[in-house]
Amino acid sequence: MARERAYLDYNASAPLAASARASMLAAMDLPGNPSSVHTEGRTARRVVEKARREVAALVNANEEHVVFTSGATEAASMLLTPHWRMGRGPLRVARLLVAASDHPCILGGGSFAPEDVTVLPVLGNGLLDLDALEAALAGHDRASGLAMVAVHVANNETGVIQPVAEIGRIAKAAGALTVFDAVQAAGRTKLDIPDGWADFLILSSHKIGGPKGAGAIVFSSDLLMPRPLVSGGGQEKGHRAGTENVAAIAGFGAAALEAAENLRSMHEIGRKRDAIEAAVLEIAPGATIFGSAAPRLPNTVFFGLPGMKAETAQIAFDLAGISLSAGSACSSGKVGPSHVLRAMGYGENASALRVSIGISTTDREVEAFREALAAIVARQFGASRAA
Amino acid sequence: MARERAYLDYNASAPLAASARASMLAAMDLPGNPSSVHTEGRTARRVVEKARREVAALVNANEEHVVFTSGATEAASMLLTPHWRMGRGPLRVARLLVAASDHPCILGGGSFAPEDVTVLPVLGNGLLDLDALEAALAGHDRASGLAMVAVHVANNETGVIQPVAEIGRIAKAAGALTVFDAVQAAGRTKLDIPDGWADFLILSSHKIGGPKGAGAIVFSSDLLMPRPLVSGGGQEKGHRAGTENVAAIAGFGAAALEAAENLRSMHEIGRKRDAIEAAVLEIAPGATIFGSAAPRLPNTVFFGLPGMKAETAQIAFDLAGISLSAGSACSSGKVGPSHVLRAMGYGENASALRVSIGISTTDREVEAFREALAAIVARQFGASRAA
Repeated sequence: MARERAYLDYNASAPLAASARASMLAAMDLPGNPSSVHTEGRTARRVVEKARREVAALVNANEEHVVFTSGATEAASMLLTPHWRMGRGPLRVARLLVAASDHPCILGGGSFAPEDVTVLPVLGNGLLDLDALEAALAGHDRASGLAMVAVHVANNETGVIQPVAEIGRIAKAAGALTVFDAVQAAGRTKLDIPDGWADFLILSSHKIGGPKGAGAIVFSSDLLMPRPLVSGGGQEKGHRAGTENVAAIAGFGAAALEAAENLRSMHEIGRKRDAIEAAVLEIAPGATIFGSAAPRLPNTVFFGLPGMKAETAQIAFDLAGISLSAGSACSSGKVGPSHVLRAMGYGENASALRVSIGISTTDREVEAFREALAAIVARQFGASRAA
Repeated sequence: MARERAYLDYNASAPLAASARASMLAAMDLPGNPSSVHTEGRTARRVVEKARREVAALVNANEEHVVFTSGATEAASMLLTPHWRMGRGPLRVARLLVAASDHPCILGGGSFAPEDVTVLPVLGNGLLDLDALEAALAGHDRASGLAMVAVHVANNETGVIQPVAEIGRIAKAAGALTVFDAVQAAGRTKLDIPDGWADFLILSSHKIGGPKGAGAIVFSSDLLMPRPLVSGGGQEKGHRAGTENVAAIAGFGAAALEAAENLRSMHEIGRKRDAIEAAVLEIAPGATIFGSAAPRLPNTVFFGLPGMKAETAQIAFDLAGISLSAGSACSSGKVGPSHVLRAMGYGENASALRVSIGISTTDREVEAFREALAAIVARQFGASRAA
């Protein structure tokens, strides 16, 4: 009998939710282009607009303030540009401030020149250094153009949740635009656009149970908008050209609806996460749980096993039927030292294992993880003694 | 009994092919991120790489020379940029030459400054004015940077096929890069990257029976590549960041495979197209078939009905259960004068109806079109007499 696998890598990509799958199936067979005015076109358009309402509702936004993209990375590339518009007039963003622990699609600075990007330090607990943020904004010459702060709400590796209200307050006081990468936070913590700290939120479908291939920017106002990254036809009110990915957008909408409902079950996920964490600390004495001194997502454990390379352990887990990640899965097949741990002061070669779970994770999978961990640690301990 | 509808708008979006649908279904349920190194990640990676081979094969390209995007419009925005790289060094493209009848995603000039874009005229038959191309390239100062010619292979409205070998020869002689928008031509005419006229081809999944949400650039060499439009992780060898849309890419691959096979059936599609054209000329004396003096795709008829606005006729067809388009469906719900007809010299307000068919179009649908056209023309004739 083939062993059942336990997929514990939701922060890399969550399995497709049943509701998202059903919405995709219904949308896949619609032949129309949502820009066509005939019956089939209008049917496809309705599917896109329904999903827009569902995605808007997840963050309590106006449905007119959602622009669909092909994913969060495209959304980040769209927003992280010096070229903006206020109405029809051009507007320049002169400086970008990012966090050292941001996802590469933010940390890379988009189309800003490297000299116009300030990388802000994070503290040992993973939280953004707010004094450094304040100092950097104070040092920005507003005559040169706007400043923009682009930070994640929750970290993809550690799950650490940033003090977004504080960051927003500091940025607003300095007249800066705020872009928040809510990819990992959406559906795991409550996010409310009307709370006012975010001018722009970045969302991803496939981290909340929707399909890969859809994302969105959601904004509090369309007064200031980036110059389109993808241009051509007038889709998405001129903000993002190209025929809409109707099936993926339909799935994204359904997943957003379900994610909003699942927020009520986060304590359940947190209970499983706690069991995983307890297992790590019990089975591997000396293990470190990174970011545990800060508020964290209820679904993520990022831990280091003493005396063991994360890549090696990750392969051992995979062979034992457990899928988890060593660092993040953001670039093609690469694993290596974690820039997030480096930013937190853990040294150049720090690496760790990430377990990230979701609503479908079962107690049996948690138990399978515990058993695999015990076997791997025992083998490692044996090997150390033999050596 | 509800009347069966006839969907005759394949150039706007083709219905999903059965093989593409099956490939998508299989891929949708794979939880892994193709960048993850665990079993689920590697399984997703294999799906993407299989599709890459299938898409490459459609245009006889090296599979290493395919970069997946979210669609053709993104591909055009990626290629139509002044910022290129030769190896690791930057390279500037100083001038873009496009055709007046190009799709808006090309005609808009991407991120070139408007003053760096030359719009080349087309002749009355819809073919690019090659003398104008030659003159524009001769007038380009090569010391300022490379020139790039970006033209469609086949027109989305008329189906007119450009003399791509000639265009390529003229461009190469002048040392210019060539980008060909093969969105409408792929799967309808044979395209061979080794023929040498195209440095870059732009392909779209949903015009060849694949799902919306996938496209590609295919190139003859990666010596010169555009600066990434979407940046972040290292996906697509660093040319296009963001988690791959595994399901849509799988569907695109299957559709490409089927489209290559269907090339053999183009005479069948051409026979149906000829029947549609004969019906137009017989039922509506004085009707014009636009572009019929040039080589055309076997699936497209673009025609004007004398004394009738295309938008009005399009609505009447829709009510009669026939989906066709008035102009193109490239921008959200907009219909209006056709820039393609204007470019061909048909005046500011020229508009027309487009019937575009595919491998699944039946004789019964062709007959339904004929009946609807007869009823609409009779009604219009009666209305004219009553007035």
